[in-house]
Amino acid sequence: MVKEYNPYLEYVKDELFLEGVSLRELAEKYGTPLYVYSASYIRDRLREYRESFPGALICYAVKANFNPHIVSLMAGEGAGADIVSGGELYVALMAGVNPSRIVYAGVGKTVKELVEAIKADILMFNVESRMELEILNQLGEQLGKKVRISIRVNPHVDPKTHPYIATGMKKSKFGIDIDRAEEEYRYALSMKNIQVVGVHCHIGSQILDTSPYVEAVSKVVDLYRSLEDQGIELQYLDIGGGLGIKYKPEDRALTPMELSSALSPILQKVKATVVLEPGRSLVGNAGVLITQVQFVKDKGEKHFVIVDAGMNDLIRPAIYDAYHHILPVVKRGRPSIVTDVVGPICETGDFLAKDRQLEEVGRGDYLAVLSAGAYGFAMSSHYNVRPRACEVLVDRGYVRVIREREDYQYILSKSS
Amino acid sequence: MVKEYNPYLEYVKDELFLEGVSLRELAEKYGTPLYVYSASYIRDRLREYRESFPGALICYAVKANFNPHIVSLMAGEGAGADIVSGGELYVALMAGVNPSRIVYAGVGKTVKELVEAIKADILMFNVESRMELEILNQLGEQLGKKVRISIRVNPHVDPKTHPYIATGMKKSKFGIDIDRAEEEYRYALSMKNIQVVGVHCHIGSQILDTSPYVEAVSKVVDLYRSLEDQGIELQYLDIGGGLGIKYKPEDRALTPMELSSALSPILQKVKATVVLEPGRSLVGNAGVLITQVQFVKDKGEKHFVIVDAGMNDLIRPAIYDAYHHILPVVKRGRPSIVTDVVGPICETGDFLAKDRQLEEVGRGDYLAVLSAGAYGFAMSSHYNVRPRACEVLVDRGYVRVIREREDYQYILSKSS
Repeated sequence: MVKEYNPYLEYVKDELFLEGVSLRELAEKYGTPLYVYSASYIRDRLREYRESFPGALICYAVKANFNPHIVSLMAGEGAGADIVSGGELYVALMAGVNPSRIVYAGVGKTVKELVEAIKADILMFNVESRMELEILNQLGEQLGKKVRISIRVNPHVDPKTHPYIATGMKKSKFGIDIDRAEEEYRYALSMKNIQVVGVHCHIGSQILDTSPYVEAVSKVVDLYRSLEDQGIELQYLDIGGGLGIKYKPEDRALTPMELSSALSPILQKVKATVVLEPGRSLVGNAGVLITQVQFVKDKGEKHFVIVDAGMNDLIRPAIYDAYHHILPVVKRGRPSIVTDVVGPICETGDFLAKDRQLEEVGRGDYLAVLSAGAYGFAMSSHYNVRPRACEVLVDRGYVRVIREREDYQYILSKSS
Repeated sequence: MVKEYNPYLEYVKDELFLEGVSLRELAEKYGTPLYVYSASYIRDRLREYRESFPGALICYAVKANFNPHIVSLMAGEGAGADIVSGGELYVALMAGVNPSRIVYAGVGKTVKELVEAIKADILMFNVESRMELEILNQLGEQLGKKVRISIRVNPHVDPKTHPYIATGMKKSKFGIDIDRAEEEYRYALSMKNIQVVGVHCHIGSQILDTSPYVEAVSKVVDLYRSLEDQGIELQYLDIGGGLGIKYKPEDRALTPMELSSALSPILQKVKATVVLEPGRSLVGNAGVLITQVQFVKDKGEKHFVIVDAGMNDLIRPAIYDAYHHILPVVKRGRPSIVTDVVGPICETGDFLAKDRQLEEVGRGDYLAVLSAGAYGFAMSSHYNVRPRACEVLVDRGYVRVIREREDYQYILSKSS
């Protein structure tokens, strides 16, 4: 069962290993809370995308995990980057991503960020509004550059995911309504410093079914063809990311191959370079969060395991009511109990699991929180003045600290 | 109406000022997003607590806003600190809080944190479990110190607030059930390195009604008296914090004087130093978050104002579905519209206000997000590799940067 999350994750004599490295030893050496990521898992997933979508450009969605060593690993495998801010552009360039493989989406790009990206000569901007188009045109003129764009269209598709991460519905802030897209394309074509190169859509995240993709991509391909019929030459069809991963034991991830099979009859209708923006599906199950039990508390009606990772380290349970599977790092064969696993932060929203069946644990034991590689560290904070976790990358037995544990001085260094 | 949030907040000729300082000028000078706090407001609130509870020890709950300059302001006015982590202890000491006025609660205190606090000789630990008591006793022995403690009792009271910030209910992870408290006190008394000095409870946050306090404090006072009857000498009655503030225009804050009036008949029954732990009520309405409009997007059915502050700057709307009142920094007398105010982050959960009646604004305009002084910056993150906001303190016309704006280098400096 463990291997269904990540084939490099396994119990060896009751002790949990990731890529041949003992998670107990890592916790003892680097302390907890500790994020541990598997490099081979990431490489395998990238290869899976490449094999499923030959000729496509795979742009890693940096938002899922912005550690520059992770981004660098992707770049080394030829991946591009899907960025949403100037900070992500900085990380992508620092990590060695080729600018000709960077696509930039986001509803609130600032002038400073747009200028940085134009100067870096990225592949294209995924434009979210007419106003952004106008500003890009002006900036292009000022900088003496022709700015490559796609229009992000909103195809009005319900991806059946958490409402916070559904982005392609009619009432969403994202994109330009697909019904109004042709008008915007014609407007863009009239602009001197804009070069229209593609169409973009992204309907959401953690999607476990191909049908919303089929629906969205059909609409976007129709638009692409209609634009071509009008003599508008395009090159890129960016269909976004959002493939769902296994969080619950009963979940089945949506694989790139399944998506490819479902979409290929539609994609064949156009001669375009397909762009994909996977994030969670590349890194989510690459990572585990190791935490140590601090206290065990039995309140009669309710049992609590209090660990040293809090909502500042992993906010997904609090904000999305997300499920993360939890395993003992060392199995002791104790009876299982029903417990809440909670953090040390002073609010009831600080929990990792509720009413979870778990082998009984004691003070000092380590737990592994699975599927923590995406939107884990990336959303972490200093709430309760808690230094953020250390991040470690394991790669075929080799271990590397890719982000040091913070200290109190770091948190306060900008307040002196 | 604006003055009901903060008497130092006012429109002067259609421009919003805080303590005599133009928020437009601050935004232009320091950039946005920008947190601005009013020092006089904080001093006034502290004075209000002191006048309402003469002789009480007021311990500022650092979790609400951990900026050391804010904590230092409190310390200068004689306040103590309510801390929940080693990091908060570090901030409190750095800010000049007298250790004899520091109380330390929290369900997951680590050995490292406990040792730091014992060595600092803080006033008392609010102990949340028997296991913590035993560890404190051991550490006291190792360090040759007698450790002062209160037991945090859980009085089973529903504070009628957001479930994430209700902390005194039976199924909560916090405290020791009040029915079992006497047993724990007797156990604590048997320990060589523990000195029992008080009773503690804290039932939650953003409470707008005195009745849950009356219910909880009555129970705690009964316990206090019963312990005294058994010859157990106590000194502190720590009744926690949690007074609610005005967020919505129709909200009425619960004032310290109202709480004092409601509790005084109960508190008179014991001869104890009352300890209070206000956080939000001291700093919440001291602060505003200034943000700049980046884009305006009309999608027919739905209107969006896209600003440069995101859920990484202020996560309360996303996580608690919290209401924050929003005002134009410069009133232009335009007609009002119904709009969502959303941030630049790539998820639908990134909003500051939904379906809000607001004067029409345009690109470049500034908006003030009110009641942002508590759990604003304190919960902020680097999500989307966004450098965190600058923090400014205004004090009777004087302006001081109390935290510099972050840059990309800062975010990544631990990953090199």
